[in-house]
Parts: sequence; structure tokens; C-alpha cells
Amino acid sequence: MPHVITTINRPDQKLIDGLAQYSSATIHEAQGRKGALSHRIKPVDPAMSFCGPAFTVRSQPGDNIMIQVAISYAQQGDVIIVNAGQLEQSGSFGDVLATACQSKGLAAFVTDSGVRDSADIREMGFPVFSGTICIDGTVKETLGLINHSLSVGDQIVEPGDILRGDADGIVVVKPDEAEELIRLCQEREDHEAELRERHRRREGEVIELHGLLEKLKDKGLTVE
Amino acid sequence: MPHVITTINRPDQKLIDGLAQYSSATIHEAQGRKGALSHRIKPVDPAMSFCGPAFTVRSQPGDNIMIQVAISYAQQGDVIIVNAGQLEQSGSFGDVLATACQSKGLAAFVTDSGVRDSADIREMGFPVFSGTICIDGTVKETLGLINHSLSVGDQIVEPGDILRGDADGIVVVKPDEAEELIRLCQEREDHEAELRERHRRREGEVIELHGLLEKLKDKGLTVE
Amino acid sequence: MPHVITTINRPDQKLIDGLAQYSSATIHEAQGRKGALSHRIKPVDPAMSFCGPAFTVRSQPGDNIMIQVAISYAQQGDVIIVNAGQLEQSGSFGDVLATACQSKGLAAFVTDSGVRDSADIREMGFPVFSGTICIDGTVKETLGLINHSLSVGDQIVEPGDILRGDADGIVVVKPDEAEELIRLCQEREDHEAELRERHRRREGEVIELHGLLEKLKDKGLTVE
Amino acid sequence: MPHVITTINRPDQKLIDGLAQYSSATIHEAQGRKGALSHRIKPVDPAMSFCGPAFTVRSQPGDNIMIQVAISYAQQGDVIIVNAGQLEQSGSFGDVLATACQSKGLAAFVTDSGVRDSADIREMGFPVFSGTICIDGTVKETLGLINHSLSVGDQIVEPGDILRGDADGIVVVKPDEAEELIRLCQEREDHEAELRERHRRREGEVIELHGLLEKLKDKGLTVE
Amino acid sequence: MPHVITTINRPDQKLIDGLAQYSSATIHEAQGRKGALSHRIKPVDPAMSFCGPAFTVRSQPGDNIMIQVAISYAQQGDVIIVNAGQLEQSGSFGDVLATACQSKGLAAFVTDSGVRDSADIREMGFPVFSGTICIDGTVKETLGLINHSLSVGDQIVEPGDILRGDADGIVVVKPDEAEELIRLCQEREDHEAELRERHRRREGEVIELHGLLEKLKDKGLTVE
Amino acid sequence: MPHVITTINRPDQKLIDGLAQYSSATIHEAQGRKGALSHRIKPVDPAMSFCGPAFTVRSQPGDNIMIQVAISYAQQGDVIIVNAGQLEQSGSFGDVLATACQSKGLAAFVTDSGVRDSADIREMGFPVFSGTICIDGTVKETLGLINHSLSVGDQIVEPGDILRGDADGIVVVKPDEAEELIRLCQEREDHEAELRERHRRREGEVIELHGLLEKLKDKGLTVE
Repeated sequence: MPHVITTINRPDQKLIDGLAQYSSATIHEAQGRKGALSHRIKPVDPAMSFCGPAFTVRSQPGDNIMIQVAISYAQQGDVIIVNAGQLEQSGSFGDVLATACQSKGLAAFVTDSGVRDSADIREMGFPVFSGTICIDGTVKETLGLINHSLSVGDQIVEPGDILRGDADGIVVVKPDEAEELIRLCQEREDHEAELRERHRRREGEVIELHGLLEKLKDKGLTVE
Repeated sequence: MPHVITTINRPDQKLIDGLAQYSSATIHEAQGRKGALSHRIKPVDPAMSFCGPAFTVRSQPGDNIMIQVAISYAQQGDVIIVNAGQLEQSGSFGDVLATACQSKGLAAFVTDSGVRDSADIREMGFPVFSGTICIDGTVKETLGLINHSLSVGDQIVEPGDILRGDADGIVVVKPDEAEELIRLCQEREDHEAELRERHRRREGEVIELHGLLEKLKDKGLTVE
Repeated sequence: MPHVITTINRPDQKLIDGLAQYSSATIHEAQGRKGALSHRIKPVDPAMSFCGPAFTVRSQPGDNIMIQVAISYAQQGDVIIVNAGQLEQSGSFGDVLATACQSKGLAAFVTDSGVRDSADIREMGFPVFSGTICIDGTVKETLGLINHSLSVGDQIVEPGDILRGDADGIVVVKPDEAEELIRLCQEREDHEAELRERHRRREGEVIELHGLLEKLKDKGLTVE
Repeated sequence: MPHVITTINRPDQKLIDGLAQYSSATIHEAQGRKGALSHRIKPVDPAMSFCGPAFTVRSQPGDNIMIQVAISYAQQGDVIIVNAGQLEQSGSFGDVLATACQSKGLAAFVTDSGVRDSADIREMGFPVFSGTICIDGTVKETLGLINHSLSVGDQIVEPGDILRGDADGIVVVKPDEAEELIRLCQEREDHEAELRERHRRREGEVIELHGLLEKLKDKGLTVE
Repeated sequence: MPHVITTINRPDQKLIDGLAQYSSATIHEAQGRKGALSHRIKPVDPAMSFCGPAFTVRSQPGDNIMIQVAISYAQQGDVIIVNAGQLEQSGSFGDVLATACQSKGLAAFVTDSGVRDSADIREMGFPVFSGTICIDGTVKETLGLINHSLSVGDQIVEPGDILRGDADGIVVVKPDEAEELIRLCQEREDHEAELRERHRRREGEVIELHGLLEKLKDKGLTVE
Repeated sequence: MPHVITTINRPDQKLIDGLAQYSSATIHEAQGRKGALSHRIKPVDPAMSFCGPAFTVRSQPGDNIMIQVAISYAQQGDVIIVNAGQLEQSGSFGDVLATACQSKGLAAFVTDSGVRDSADIREMGFPVFSGTICIDGTVKETLGLINHSLSVGDQIVEPGDILRGDADGIVVVKPDEAEELIRLCQEREDHEAELRERHRRREGEVIELHGLLEKLKDKGLTVE
């Protein structure tokens, strides 16, 4: 079994550009409330966001050799995403690797473990999402897997799946559902924009405007 | 037993305005070190703060139907506070509901579970305090309780209790103690302002200015 | 056994000034990947940083009397660091004590427990690092130890050890290793600056520029 | 405000005896899925169980003076239940206090913090439920509250409420609901005994015997 | 997309019987240190163990309707495994469902959430592995997925994958690797039995008998 | 700096035998409430206990090469204690190493990370204390430190310090305090035995027998 698979099926750029217009929460809802990664994986800065195909890495906890391999083989626009055993006390990625990623035009770096040089990364503006921020350095000793199916953040991520991240976290999208999903996102956004506008105009209470009156009655809600 | 009680005793606005002048920590100390909710419930943005009467909700984890009911019955100035079983992987409140709350003039939304659309909420400036920030949507299936006594954040909150929140967290105040408490807060604030001024002038060490010398001697502190 | 030892060996100011030029992560790596405190101890604001000798405190959880003693005996430039049993629901340090510290010219306050008045502290700009931010007040009843060897954040900190903190966390340096360490930090910084520059110029992939090709081959990496 | 209220309304012994026949899970379901304390509070030994009226304590974290007061005023059959701020690193109750409790005929001791002498307590067979098992001793310095309303384990417990604990955890019952509840528990137990028997006889699948077929169809379950 | 897929490819019974002879740790090592689920999923009783094909469930947190569906469609020898969002405060499976499972001859029930009736389940001896033990009941409202690929315990589990559980936790095995794996497990077991025997005879130190002397020398270990 | 120091000062066997007569909680109290390691480090089986000198190890998380070195150099009666970065998802010690330890007559193995083969270890009866039980294997790549001062479980452990472990956890004793401590333990045990006996005879309430009446009065306890 090869450790590193270098070729992945990247979805059409227009699918990525399409999804990049919507928030992670909108995409999650529009695809039927699925695909949200664990809330523990969060941006180094809430202003960070990204959208791109997954380039997956399974590494030994506390070892970043496979991250260095992954950055070397990833291509412009890719999102490197790592399962490193949820090790919290680990700073597996810092400003040098962030510079390498940014120089290659990668879209983001994501790990369920920790990262460091957070102040520099924030200043660079390169999107980094992690479980923790931590000083501790890593070793470079043990091989892992690149672009095999990955369980990360309580979701399955296949290489080439589209990842969308923002202040709320990260959602994964299957490429063959992306086109229809973009349409559904726009519908949802239009609907929500209208709802927000109606709330602003105070046209009714939430349970009226959101169509819950009958459901609540059916369920036997008693109000006093 | 009715699920929803819509009428709560709201304290006088001048009590709320009075308490709103003091920080959560000052109020907590002035009322004898009580009423601080769990530190896990924190503002989406540290600049957020609020003061208002509690409008309480007990919901099923991962289900926001009662939140929608609560917003519908709450009134201007109210603080909706929810026990949703401390479910972390849940985004039970987002920008549409925040718009509804803000349009109605509610004071804040508080939950021991998660919220989403955090970037939008931050921009709107509507005070939202939560256990996590998380994408995951909720269902709308199971009824709960509104304006019953609530255990939340390791404190008891009765409907109409005054909640004060800021960057440090949230403190609960019993309305019948509020008037005296405002006086005690001002006393404390005056005393602390004077202490800070004396520290700035370097009038003495902490154990001198804070009157601890005798206590430390009585307890047998040995200094070398 | 005295509770309070007031005299500690403070390292030369030029060692502190020397180390203050480097990030916590650079220092950690340069001294052979050691000395990083637990990632759970983090700055109240990511912009905060400090460098100074440790003035150590072991206190009872939920009791800040020894913190007040420590501030009274600490000197300009010192970093007070406290093990308070990792109690999360505790606000053991606030704006009055921060004012006292700042007025005396202390370098920072660090605890594995919680602090409060976080908004004021942020505004004051006095560096405070803690496990949590929490309203809950403390009692002043039980004596502890000052300037004894301290286990804190999964590291041993001796009084007079140099602590360097920034957005990534805190690293501890033994004073007799500081001079050589400053040299190694500069070497590392020069090397990393060059690496970043080479990445920016796209001179090669990470595994090439970081010299990993042979190691990966030796370990039997298979690429497809 | 008195710290210690010594007189509580204890429910009829026959209500306690009646509830003691049913498991905590049966009681929780029979009263409409409410009253279960946090799963973090668990027996020192899974064989321990109890039923009795709550004698409530709010103590300072790491301080057991109010526990000693509570044991002194509690009466035969009482369950002492303590909120000690969820401090994990604390052994606030051990074999001497357990002997005192057992000698007085108390029903159980419950805390959201830690206990010690766990091997002795296990051997004594006195029911002790706690958040952790921990060596660390406590101080005896700070007063708290006895028999005031208590928030503990994410539930409200009033003095005199009936607490039932077993291997699954603890459930709280309001005394004025106990009589009807005993009847509902027996109904539920009869129903579940019959269900288990039908499952043993393999009379049908779960969704048939539990009456879910129509509900699943209504919800649009698709089976392939 | 169907919610429920009822037909899965079950591996040959002789593969399951073969793997059932080895511990989860042996299998994990023999297949190249992979497939161990999160340590948080543990048996209700350390004496429980099982081996069988995975029958996968993705359910809403706090809702066990899909568990009831899964038990209805699972077959003798199957292991039902559930991702329920890691909700800790939930008792999604109890003695009635355990009786149904045992009556049908299922091999085990596994969830990343909680279970209840733990004393009865322990007595029945039906293998149940869970994240927590908790009283709290669940609703039966929201559909989920059965026998789709599942991320659970930080691993990917496909329907029909072989799961082996014991006191240490659970490991997942791909069926097409099982035959070779059984051989490797036996080799490893033989090797370890021999190693243990040599240790018992005190034939040498660990670093000698485990062949580490040269490696340690190459890595530059200094011994004083 | 050598990685491995093989010679440690072991305390007199009679000190170890002396302390082995008392529980960890008794020792902790008798030495002035100090030295208890984190409650997270617990025995694989509550029946396990030990007493012996510390043989300290600092290892890379997820790497057990230094554990193998430590076992090779430790001597009869030693307690190997490891800081492995609190990595939970790691089984760094199993039945082969336990056999090696037991064959050499080591007293116990302690780690802040995880162990596996827990059923076998339980059966062997060799005392193993750990943060978790976990299947995941470790690599053998990165050198660490043996018999340097160690921070572990929020305490400092020096090589040769006496460690006493039982069902409640582990306490560390400085050898030069051991002789006096044994005397204090016996005093405390005698005193507690008498107290327990007086409680059994119902000679008075806890606050009377424990001499708290005056203290409570001084502190202003109000009883109603």
C-alpha cells in the first residue's frame, strides 16, 4: 500500500467558487444538515475563511513529517487536512510551513492537533484551522498516509472533497452534490434574507414567520 | 403542567439600568460572591455585554423549537437563557434568530450549547453568549419548558431574575436584592477605584493596602 | 519550612532582553524542544507578550491570599506564576491586582486557574496568562508557598527561571543556558528567515528545502 | 440570611420505599424524562444504590467544613448532596466522615467534586457518589449554605426532594409527584417486563413491538 | 438517498472466528498499527468482548429511533455501531433494547454516546460499549442513516467491516485483509509469548530482547 | 547532557516498608496536604497498590522507546513513572513490558498517557497506573530523558522520591521526610481509628468530635 497518493480528482473551480459564496452553516443546512466537522477545529483568527479540495493526511501524533510531504505534493487551491490523533499539546505547523503553503497558493491548512507561530500566521492571513495553539515542536520520524480516506473531526473526508471553512468551523461537501447544492444554498440564502427582512419589519413573531404554529399545536404545546 | 409560561415578573427598569453600570465581577463580589454562571458560557465577542431579566428555556439537546417559541413570547429587554444539556456539537441559534431578537429589542441570547453565524452575529453586535460556536443545525421536534425554574451554568435562574453579562461571563441577581446591591456595587467600585489609585501612587504593597498584614501574621506566615 | 522565600536569583537583564527578541516557539526549538508549558495557559489577549524571571506561587484552589503576598514581594520585571490546582471556576486575579502589578513594573501574571476583569486588563495592556476567564471570587484563608520549586503547566519552574510568553503560550528557560540559547535562537531565526525567503521565491518543495528527501527514502516512503 | 437551615420537610417514608423499588432510569422516564443529574456524578462502586430526601450543601471548592456541618445536622435516611464548584482535584470526604454518616444511618453522600479512601468506602458499602476519586485534602475555612435551593449536576435540588441513585447515576423527584410516580413506575416496569418477554420469545422486531412502524412511515423512512 | 440499507456484505464466519481469538491490541499491531477507535468508547464491564461485522448507524444526538430501526434489520452476529454526535448526557440504549439484541443473537452494541440500565446489562452479559453511562432518555423523532459509511471514534467504519472489542476498546478490520491478518496475529502472539517467556526467565533486559541496542546507539543515546 | 542517568539514590527499604503501611490519603495529609498527583492517573484495577522509589522518564508522546530503556535499567522495587505529554489516545505499555517489569521485581509502572492489554495486566496483578486505557500502539523513534527531575501529574518527582499508590491515586514523598512522616502517619491513623470508633458509638456529632464548634462560632455560622 503506497503511503502517498499524489493525484486526486479536483472538482471544477466553478464549483469551488460557487460554494465559496456561502457560509459553512448555509452549506451544511442546504445539503440536509450534514458534513460539519467537530467544533473543536477552529480558525486561528475568526476572520479566516477558505474553500477548496481536500488533500488528506494521516500522521503520527506529535510528528509532522507527513505534513511536510503533503505540502510538497499539494497544488494551488488545495486544502491540507490532517488527522494527528487529536494531540492537543503539539505545534505541528508554523510560520515557515505557512509561508510555503501561501507561496504555493494553497487555500488552507487544517489539523485536529495544534499549530504555533499564531501571531505571524494571523498577520500573514493564511487560513489555518486547528484544535489548539501550542508551542511544542514535533519530530519527523514516522510515515503516515496521504490522500487515503480520512476520518477527521467526526466526519469522513475523501481526497478531493470540497471543504469550506469560516468563523463557525468547517463543512465537507461531496463534489457530485456541489452543483445542485450551490442552487440550494442560494435558495436558502434568499429565503433567509427575506426572513431577516420580515423580522426587521416586525411582520410577525418567529413561530408565525417560520411556520411553526400548526406543528406546535399538533405537538400539544400548552401556553399560559 | 403548561410548557410555556408567558408572563414573568420583570424587575423595575431602574434596577436593570442600575446594575448595568457595574461589571459582572463587581456584582458577584458585592452580593457576597454568588451567582456567577459557569465560565464555559462566554460571549461570541468579548466586547458584548448586557443586562436584563431572564426568560428561561429548557430544550432538548440539538432541538431549537423552544428557542423559537421563547423569542416569540419574550419582550423588549429580556434575556433568553437556555439549558440544552450542554451539547457542544450544536449550532442552535444563528443570524435569522439573532435578527428576530434584535428587531424585538431583546437584550441578549444565552445558551449552554452552541451557536452559529458567529461572524454575522459579531457584526450585528447583538449580545450572544454560548458554550461553543458550531455549524451543526438542530431539529424542531421536541417540546420543552419556558419560564420554569432553570438550572443552567451550575446556577439556578428563575424567570425575571436579572442577568448581567460581559467579557468575564454572566452573573444572576435576585430582583429583591437588586436595590441594595446597586448601592453595594457603587461602594465597592469607589473602594476599588481608590485602591487602584493608591497602587498607582505606590503608597504601599498589596498586603498593606489590602489590610492583610495582621491576618497573615495570625495564620503564621513565615517569610525568609 | 518558610512559606515565603523573598530572595531569588534574577538572571542578568541582558539575558532577558536577549530572549525577549525571540518568540516562545523559537526559544523552545532552539533549546532542543523543551520547556513549553501546557497550551491551556493562554494570554487574555493574543497581543500580550512578556519576558522575565519567575516568581513562583503554590496556592490553594479558589484562594488568592498568596497571590497578594507574591505581588507584595515581587520586584520590577518579575513574572508571577501560580499553580492553583487548575481550578477552572475561579477568578483569582482582577483589575486591582493588575494595577498593583503594573504600578510596580512587574512583567506579567500567569496562573493555571482563572482571572477576571478581562476587559479592563486587556485595555491596561498588562500581560496576564491564565487557564480560564471567570467571574468567581476567591477567599483569602489558606497559606501556600512562594519561591519554592513549582510544577505548573506540566513543567518544572524554579524561582528565577526565565519565562517567555506570547500568543502561542509560555516557555521556561534555565538561566545558565540563556546566553548560549540566545545565540542558537538567532541562528534558528536566520535559518528560518532564509527558508521563508526561499519558499517565497519558490526555489523548491518543502521536502527539498528542508532536506527531507533522503530521510523519506530511507524510511521507505512510497509515492504513487 | 442564615447559613444553615436544619429543618427540612422530609417526604413520607412509604414514598421513599416505594421509589426505592425502581431504577433511576425507570423513574426518570416515568416522570416524563426529567430530573437526571449529570452523568459525571457516579457511584464509587457500581453496586451502590440509595433513595432518600436531599439535605443540600453549597460549599467553597476545596473546603469541606460545610460537609462536616451537614453531617452533624442531617438525620437518619437523609442524602447529603453537595455543590463544590465541580473541583476535580479534591478529596472532600473520606472514611472518617463515611463512618459518621453510616453510624447515623444516613442514606448516601453525593458531591460534584471528589472523594477519597475509596477502597475503604467500597468495603463499608456506604453509598458515595462523586465527580472524581482524588487524594487531595481540603481546608475547613469558608462557610457556605445548607438546605437552600441547590443547582447541582445541571438540575435544581430542593431540600427534601427525593434522590434515587444507582449504577446509572442519580435522579431527583419532587415529593408531591412521588405517589403518582410510583404508580407510573410500576406501569412502566410491567410494560417493559412484557416487552422484554416478547423480545425473548422473538414475537417481532423492535419497530413492530415498540409500535414505531407507522411513525417511521409518516416520517418517510426509505428502506432498501 | 435511502435512509436504511438493509443488505450488507458480511465476511465469512471463519474470518470472524479467527479474529475473535486475538485481542484488540494484537490485531491493531498486526495490521500495522491502525484501526483503533477512540479510547473514550469503552465496555460497560471490562469482562465484555465481541467480534462481528459492523451494522452502522448515524443518529441525531439524543434520539434513538434509528437504533430501534437498526436492531430490527440487523442479523445474528452483527455489531451495531452508532455515531450520535458524542452526546455525553444521553442514555440511548437500555435493558429492553439489550434484550432484543441478545434474543436476536447480535454480537454487540457500540455507541459514541451514552447507555443506561448498566447494572442489568452487566448481569445479562450482552456486550455494550459506550462513551458514557447516563440515565437521560432519548426522543424518537429524527431519521438518520443505516449502513452508510460511518465516521465514529476517529475511524472510518464501513458496513460489514469486522469489529473486535475487549477491555482495551475496539479495533476495525477490513474484511479483505482479515485472512492474512489472522496469520499475522498468530505470528505476533507466538512471538510475544516467547518474549514473555524469555522475560520470565530473565534472559536479558528489554532493550536486548527487543533488539533495540543498535537503534539506541545509532540515535546517540548517552547513558551515565 | 546525558539522556539516561542510571544511578539514583534509593531510600532505605525500611522507609518504603514503613510508608507502604499507610494509604496515599493518610500520607498526603500527614505530610501537610502535599504531593498528591493528578486524579487523572488511576490504577488499571482499584485493587492495585504499590510503594517504591521513582525511576523517572520523559518521553515523546506516542513513543515508548524510553520506557523500554527505563525498564532495562530499573532495579527491583523501583516505580517507573513517565510523562508522555498526557497523550490520551496511546497504549504505550502492555503485557510484554508488564511481564518484563514483574520478572525484574519492579514495584509499579505509572504514566500520564495510556496503557493496553488491561485485562492481562489485571490478571497478572502487576500495579499499573495510567491516564487512559487505549489500544493504540506507539513508535520507538525519539530519545527522551531518564532520571532527570520530572513534572508529572502536576507534581515534581525527583528520581528516588518515594511514590505510594492505591485506589485513590499516587502521592510523592521526599526521602528525607519519610522517617518523621511514618511516625505522623501512625499518629494520624491512631487518631482516625479513634474518631471512627467514637462515631460508631455515636458519642457526638461530627462538628463536636472534630472540634469545630468554636471555629464555626468564630466564623459567624448562623443556624436556623
